Formats: sequence, structure tokens, C-alpha cells
Amino acid sequence: MSQNIEHIRHSLAHLLAAAVLKLYPDAKRTIGPAIDTGFYYDFEFSSPISDEDLPRIEKEMKKLLPTWSSFLHKEVSPVEARQAFSNNPYKLELIDEIVAKNEKITLYTSGDFTDLCRGGHVENPSDIELASFKLDKLAGAYWRGDETKPMLTRIYGLAFATEEELTAYQAMREEAKKRDHRILGKQLGLFMISDDVGPGLPLFFPKGAILRRTIENFITELQERRGYEPIWIPHITKGKLYERSGHLDKYDAMYPPMHLKDEADYYLKPMNCPHFMMLYAEVPHSYRDLPVRYVCTTTNYRYEKSGELAGLTRVRALTQDDCHVFMRPDQVESEIGLMLDMIDEVYTAFGFKDFSVRISTRDPKNTAKYIGNADVWEQSESALSRLIEKRGWKHELGVGEAAFYGPKLDFIFKDVLGRPWQLSTIQLDMNLPERFELEYTGDDGAKHRPVVVHRAILGSTERFMGILIEHYAGAFPLWLAPVQVSVLPISEKHVEHATHIVSQLRGAGMRVELNGDNDTIGKKIRASETMKVPYAIILGDKDIAAGVVSIRKRGGEDLGQMKLEDFAMRITKEVTQKV
Amino acid sequence: MSQNIEHIRHSLAHLLAAAVLKLYPDAKRTIGPAIDTGFYYDFEFSSPISDEDLPRIEKEMKKLLPTWSSFLHKEVSPVEARQAFSNNPYKLELIDEIVAKNEKITLYTSGDFTDLCRGGHVENPSDIELASFKLDKLAGAYWRGDETKPMLTRIYGLAFATEEELTAYQAMREEAKKRDHRILGKQLGLFMISDDVGPGLPLFFPKGAILRRTIENFITELQERRGYEPIWIPHITKGKLYERSGHLDKYDAMYPPMHLKDEADYYLKPMNCPHFMMLYAEVPHSYRDLPVRYVCTTTNYRYEKSGELAGLTRVRALTQDDCHVFMRPDQVESEIGLMLDMIDEVYTAFGFKDFSVRISTRDPKNTAKYIGNADVWEQSESALSRLIEKRGWKHELGVGEAAFYGPKLDFIFKDVLGRPWQLSTIQLDMNLPERFELEYTGDDGAKHRPVVVHRAILGSTERFMGILIEHYAGAFPLWLAPVQVSVLPISEKHVEHATHIVSQLRGAGMRVELNGDNDTIGKKIRASETMKVPYAIILGDKDIAAGVVSIRKRGGEDLGQMKLEDFAMRITKEVTQKV
Repeated sequence: MSQNIEHIRHSLAHLLAAAVLKLYPDAKRTIGPAIDTGFYYDFEFSSPISDEDLPRIEKEMKKLLPTWSSFLHKEVSPVEARQAFSNNPYKLELIDEIVAKNEKITLYTSGDFTDLCRGGHVENPSDIELASFKLDKLAGAYWRGDETKPMLTRIYGLAFATEEELTAYQAMREEAKKRDHRILGKQLGLFMISDDVGPGLPLFFPKGAILRRTIENFITELQERRGYEPIWIPHITKGKLYERSGHLDKYDAMYPPMHLKDEADYYLKPMNCPHFMMLYAEVPHSYRDLPVRYVCTTTNYRYEKSGELAGLTRVRALTQDDCHVFMRPDQVESEIGLMLDMIDEVYTAFGFKDFSVRISTRDPKNTAKYIGNADVWEQSESALSRLIEKRGWKHELGVGEAAFYGPKLDFIFKDVLGRPWQLSTIQLDMNLPERFELEYTGDDGAKHRPVVVHRAILGSTERFMGILIEHYAGAFPLWLAPVQVSVLPISEKHVEHATHIVSQLRGAGMRVELNGDNDTIGKKIRASETMKVPYAIILGDKDIAAGVVSIRKRGGEDLGQMKLEDFAMRITKEVTQKV
Repeated sequence: MSQNIEHIRHSLAHLLAAAVLKLYPDAKRTIGPAIDTGFYYDFEFSSPISDEDLPRIEKEMKKLLPTWSSFLHKEVSPVEARQAFSNNPYKLELIDEIVAKNEKITLYTSGDFTDLCRGGHVENPSDIELASFKLDKLAGAYWRGDETKPMLTRIYGLAFATEEELTAYQAMREEAKKRDHRILGKQLGLFMISDDVGPGLPLFFPKGAILRRTIENFITELQERRGYEPIWIPHITKGKLYERSGHLDKYDAMYPPMHLKDEADYYLKPMNCPHFMMLYAEVPHSYRDLPVRYVCTTTNYRYEKSGELAGLTRVRALTQDDCHVFMRPDQVESEIGLMLDMIDEVYTAFGFKDFSVRISTRDPKNTAKYIGNADVWEQSESALSRLIEKRGWKHELGVGEAAFYGPKLDFIFKDVLGRPWQLSTIQLDMNLPERFELEYTGDDGAKHRPVVVHRAILGSTERFMGILIEHYAGAFPLWLAPVQVSVLPISEKHVEHATHIVSQLRGAGMRVELNGDNDTIGKKIRASETMKVPYAIILGDKDIAAGVVSIRKRGGEDLGQMKLEDFAMRITKEVTQKV
């Protein structure tokens, strides 16, 4: 019988604590929850342990498990509980908290091990497959996550429903390590992070810059095809703009101001919404002009903590594919429909097939805390759900999770390794149109407030690139590859002809690189493979004599000889189809 | 006999002062030089005068002029000079300065008017054509340009060699007023400047954003076709980078730092050179890899005084088409040749036919003050001159005007009204490669320092746009026009077919706008004309019945009916040819 995986993982956390206490009787246990991939338990050890001790602890767990046939549950008084954990200050602190909240105190016992616990275990622990879990690694962790409190030792375990799932997860993780975008980014010459410039502020080499641009142009073209229009805004502004939008007080990640002697303070922009509002507000609009669809791919600056920065996936300079659509309330459904079309097209092109949508709506019990017209809320919320349901997309409702200014949709995509990434967002905003007094003249001749929807498809170019590098393990499909074809003359005497081929392919719009080094052809092929170039043209006497080129695909497939025009046609088609 | 125009203008400044003193005996004169378009003279008046007084002063000038047959020159002692100007503190201050510098004091007399002056007059003032000059306008000006000193009244005069030249200049100025890019920018919906965002920080509406992008993409495409490669860099950096480059102390226009609690100060970047250096320095280079040609169109921020800002031509957010080429010394000539090709191509495309080059070289008497290898200096300087001469381009030598780190070329282009603009620059840099310790491995296996050339073709997108708007008076050629075709259905019933035509042309890559308003066709045509759209398609019953479209060119020319495909082909060709 299949058991709840959360319960299995939590049960194993108990087992881990039992094993540790058997082997290290003076260790003090604290807490041990289930997590996404297994479980952990935090301990205070009297002397440090290392990764080398994990096999011994795991062995002890597997020895104990068959003897655990149940979790016995017992409600105890505060006095009893404090007695049971009299030499453990951590547990005593937890007991005090439970008492303060006036909740029940429960102990759970398996074998000869008893722990303070709220419950959530399997009925029969000995049913857990021995090969379905293993200890993973050690880490330091502050008690209650508070850096002023003692540093504990966290032992992580992996646990899945079956051995197969565990093995698959471990393989995925190994693969993810190989795909680390920071390592591939260096290897493929995509970007660098410099201490002189600062953390979270990557600089992009040509190959990275081309990849950025290809992604951004794809989004631009896709939007403009649907009637979206580009705008351009500067990266700094007087504080006045953010006072008006309300961000200045509330937005944490703003860089500190630049103080000028003769003028008000200037700020780097961490978001663009107020700028979009200014452009809309500058000219009069009629109901016939709506929707007004403005887009801008522009870099924002957010002062994220340096400890939280990671390669491209968490940066301080984030280039957003930002969009604000100004619409009449009756246009919400069709406009959001258009956005869903685009999200669908984009993620299909990038090969993200698995995704789900989270629909955040008002808390129906507390509608007073939301601003804006109640009718607009109702219409929008039902339009959002209806649109997602109609497409048959996986979704869940986040009732009460809407911002005070409007409902939203969040899209969670899974990459090729199954890792989830929150990427696209569609957010209704009834706040900024108020603050910036946006208007349009209705067919009744009166002034009305437009609804604003902001939307990002990729989130940020940088983060998306980081994800994409790992998703493709750096082996980008042809349309994205910074270098699409490498031309490899077999010897010096073929270089001139090779140069000619390079110009012809460049003239046809291809990104081509010549390897004119004085190396063997084997070495040149390996270099092309290391750089994950989709196609290599190998050029020797026979090719030149026959007026053809020999084509080798990334990975090794030999496509044989063909005419250069045929090859150009083939890859042009491949680029267009984005395969 | 033609006289030196500088001398004419300076002589007229004397005449202006004489006329003013006749009419306002208690006015105090200060200084009066020749300027590009005539002359001015600054006075302290006992009571304010207005523009309405200028005709009277001009009349007096023209009355006096025939009586002025020469400039009599007399050297005087300080005592005599002080006596002559005893009631004029301004002149006394000037006399003190001349005395302090131990220079000669000279007075010049014409008619009964004598002024303290260094000379530079016409021999016979009465030869000056009366109709070749006129008084222009009044302005306030601080004594010595110092805002802590008294405010004087400046009277400007226009003066040219002939009446025709004066008339032509006035006509040009009238035309320039009509072409003012700030007015056209608003009328054509290109950009806005907002007080909430700040002066010098324009925001661009879609039409302006498309114009920006068209210009920038043209430069990008042009460069990449020649083997230049894009990079991408963030807009902020730690101060450390600018310490290393030496800019932090010396560069005036930097925005003040952003102070962080836990980290070093961050700065907005006012230029990109150091970032280019970082990217080059990050990976090893061989002599075979050179030249490395990096380009980046990126926005820099410079804190220009708010009083000096003007529309787009002087901004604080300037997007530069920046380029740095890293080369071996033997590549300087061919690399700069490539840059000259590009400058030629760009300005031909934009219709700037008239230009000249200023070649700035070392001061041969003071070679010690220049850094870098003397051979590289000599080779580069002679290469620069040789290249410009070979092309037969107008040029002048600025001996001693080179920066301490390398010689340079500045390109001055004249717009359609003949106004000069300094746009492109090519600058050798032997300083930053030192500071960033840039290297390449030579064919001798040893490390060498590359030469760096920085170059901008447009200068900045914003300034160039401002110039371009005035150059074309907003009537952009087809390839630049933000809207290329407006589709004008004659009545409601033609709107559906018009919509179809819009999609077809958009599908063919055209920028098309539909005017579906409920207006007369006359009004729609006028709107298209006001927005300076190159082509209008007028669509009525007859067109639809015959399966054709009626085409009207901007300005009024009727091209008659044609098939939509033929029209699409015609304009596609026109875009490609950039006419």
C-alpha cells in the first residue's frame, strides 16, 4: 500500500534522531521536518562530526527500522514533557512555546525512541523500503534560523517512495551539477562576474550578449506581431516618481539614493511601472484607442543581499521584458487571452512542456482590504479562471493570495530535469491607475479609469538565461546557439576557401566561426564539441575539389557531403522552426 | 575688396558701443568680441532697455558708420589708460589685468569713439555694407561669466560679409526654429521630459522608441557585418573599477555614489571603457586572435548642469554606440580604415554630405608629457593623416591637441541647414591598456601590450536623434519613419478591408497604422500629413472593387492606384535603399 510521502519523510527524521542518539548519546536533538527531497534533523553535537560519519548513522537507521512497527501517540502535561526533555534546552524552549499557545503536547514513540512531535507519520515504519532513503550531507544551521543563536549540525537525508525514485533523483542531481550555468557560462565564454564591478552584476562576452539578444528579440518580435509597442525609459529617476507610486517607502530592494547638492535625490529604478504610467498619462486617450500596449526590455537594479546572489539566476542587474497594457474593463478577458497565447508560444519554443498556473484571488471573507471596483474584481477573477480552464492548463487557486490591488496569475515551469521555476506573471493593477490619475474618455463622453495589467513572460533575461543554460546543458538549439556553425579547414591550405565559406554563411545571416588555428582536425572537432556548436563544416581537398562541404552535427552524427547552398537552406529552416 | 569677416564683426562691436554711448551717455561699456554669427557688446545700463530699443541703436550705428574711415591705434601708459576710463570700473579692471601681465595697453579710435582694445579691425570701417549687419537681440550676461558678479546687458548683432549672407543666415535660423526637435518631438509623439523623472532624462513613446531602435540596429548590423562583436555590461559598478581606470578622481560629470552599509560605494557608469578592458583582460589572447572588436550600445549617465540641458541634444542619459578594438600596433592602420568606411557609410545613409575631420596630434616640442611607446605614436599619427588624405576628406591638423594617451580624429558634420555637429570620434588609447595590464602573446611567445582604439559613430543615440529630427524636419525617410504607411478607409464600411491591408503590410515587415476614426477622408489625410507619414493608402469602394489601393505620398503627390503587392514591393525596395 502506498503511503503518504510526507509521512514517510517525517518518520525517517525520527529514525535519524534515534540512530544519532544511539551512536552519540550526548548529542542534543532539536527539530526534524520533512522537506521536498527527504528530511533533515538538527543536532547539537558535543564534538563535530563529518560526512564520513554518515554511513555509520545510516547503517544504524537501517538496523533500527525493522524494529519500528508503529508510532505510539501520547498526550502529556507540561510537567511530564519538561521532565522527559529536562537536559535538552531546545526541546524545553519548544515546550514553552506550545504551552504559551495553549496547545496540546504530544509525544510519539517508536521502538525505544520518543520525540516531542505534532504527528504526521506512517502507520507502520518498518514498511518503508530500506533502499528508498539515504543520508545525504551535513550543513550548519542556526537554531531557529537566527544567527545570534547557537550553530547546530543539520543532517540531510534523501527519501522517496521507491528506490527507483531515489535513484532517479540522484541521477538528476548529478546531471544538474554538470549543467551548472556558472561553470558552463565560463566554459562557453558567455559571461563573467568581476570583483571590481561587483557581485550580481555580470558582464557578458559576445557569445553571452548574442544569446541575450536572441532571447530578447524573440520576445520583442512576438509581442510586436500582436500589436504591442516598444517604449524606452531611463534607468534613473528623481525620488518624486516613486513617492507618487508609493514604492519609495515600501520597496525594500532599492539602491540608496544619489545625493546631489542642487537637486532632489536620484534613484536607480528597481521597477518600471511608474514610468509606464507617466507615458500613458502624458497624452489624452479615448475608449477607441484602448488597449494601449506598451513593452520595454530594460534593466532594473535591486539590491539583493550578496549572500543570496547566484550566477545569473539571482542578480542585482535584472533585465525585464516588462509590459503594461492599459485597457477598458470589458477588455480584460481578451487581453489576458492574448498574453496566454504568448506565454504558450514562448515556452513551447524553449522546450518547457510542463507547467502549472497559480491563480491568486481575493479573500472572500475580507473583501474590504482590497482597493478598486468590486465589479472589476469579480469579472477579472472569473475571467482568469475561465481562461485557464478553457485551455485545460494545470492550475490551482490561491484564495486570499491576491495583492491588495488586483488578482494575478503565476506560471511555474519545469525544466528538462523537472525542477520548477516561477517565470511568467500576469498581474492586474487597480492601484497605480489611481495614483497616477490615469483616464480615458468613454463613449459616454465621461472620464473613466483604465485597468492596467502588468506582465512579464521571461521574468528577467539574466535569470532565464541561467535556467536555459542548465535546461539545455549549454547545447542550445540552432536558433539560440551563439555560434551556429564552426568552419574547420583540415590544413593551412584550406583556410582561404574556408574564409570564403564563412563569408557566404554570414551573408545568409548565420553566426559562423572559423577555426584557422594550426591544429589537427581532430583537435578542431573536439574544440567545436566543447563549445557545443551545433554544426561543424570540415573542409579538405576532396570537399573543395567536389565543390561541397562535409557536415558533422554536434554529438558526432556525420551528415556527409552536401552543397553549401543545401546546407544553408537546411539550417535556415531549422532556425525558423526553432527546433 | 573682401575684408576679413572677423575684423568686420569686431569693428561693428566698436560701432555698437559708440552708438549706445551716444544714446545712453551714462551706460558703462565692458567688452565686445566677434562671434560666429556677428558680434556682441556687454553694457551696464543705468535703467533697463528692451528689444524695442534696438532699432534706434541700429539706426545710430548706421548713421555713425559712414563717418568712420579708420581705426587709429595708440599705445598708452597705465596712467593714461586709467584716466581715459576713470568712471568705468570694468575697463579699470581690464587695465589692471593687462598691467599685471606686463602687456602693452592700446586704444583704438574711430570717429570720436575710443575703446580699450587689442586690435583686429578692418582698415576702413565705412566700407562695411550697411545692409550686411543688424542688431539681433538682448540677453543678460554676468561680468566675466561669473554669477557672483554684476549682471550686464548683452546686445547681439548679426554680421556677414554681404547682405545676401545675412539674409540666408536669417532664413536658416527661421527654418531651424520650425524644425526645433523639442517641438517636433512633441508633435510627432516621439518623447517627453517629465518633472517627476528629471531633466535630461527623456522617456520615449513608441514612435520615438522605434526611431531609436532603427538607428541603433542600423549601426549594430553595419558593425557586425564587419566582424565586430556585441558585449553587454551593467549600468552600475563598484568605485574600484573607476579607481583602477583613473576616472574616479578626474571625471567631473559622475553622479554621486550610492552608499551602502555593508559594501563599498556603487556608481552609475558615465563611460564604458573600463568595462571593455575587464572583458578583454578576463581571458588570454594570442596575436592570432587580434583584433578583438567589441561593441556595446549602452546608456551612460552624466550629471550635466541642468541649465545646459536641451531636449535630446544635451541629456543626462546618453546611449552610446561604444566600441573598443584591441589590436597589435601593426593593425592600427587597417582597423582605423575599417572605422572610416563605417563612418562614411553611416553619414551617407543619413544624408550628411558635408563634413570635415580634425586630426589631433602630439605637441612635437613637448613629447615628454605623452605616455606610451614613441614608435606607436609616430606610426599612428602618420597612419591617421595618411588615411584621411587618401580619401580626400577635408581635414585640419590640431597639433598639440592629442590627449596624453593617444592621437585622435574628430568628425564634424554639417546638417541640411549647414549647422556643424561634432559626432564621430576615433581615439587611440595607450593608457587604459597599461592600467588594466592588458596583454597578448606575440608570435615571439612573449607578452605584449595591445593598442586600444575607442570609437563612436553617432556619439549618442539621443543627441543624434535630436539632430536627425531637425535635419529632416521630422519628415524621416521611409526606412527611419516610425510609421511608414497610414491606412485611411474613406468610411466605416471600408474599415474591415483596411484592417486586412494593415495585417498584410505588417506581415511584410512594414510599420503601419490604421486610422479608423469616424472622420472625413480630408481630415484623415491632414492627420497623416501632420504626423509626416511617408505614405497614405486611401481606401474606398472603387479601390476595393478593383482589388487595388490608392497611394498618396507625403507632401501630396498622388501615385494613383496599384496592387497592394506592387506597393509593398516598392516600399520594401525604398527601405533597403535607405532613400
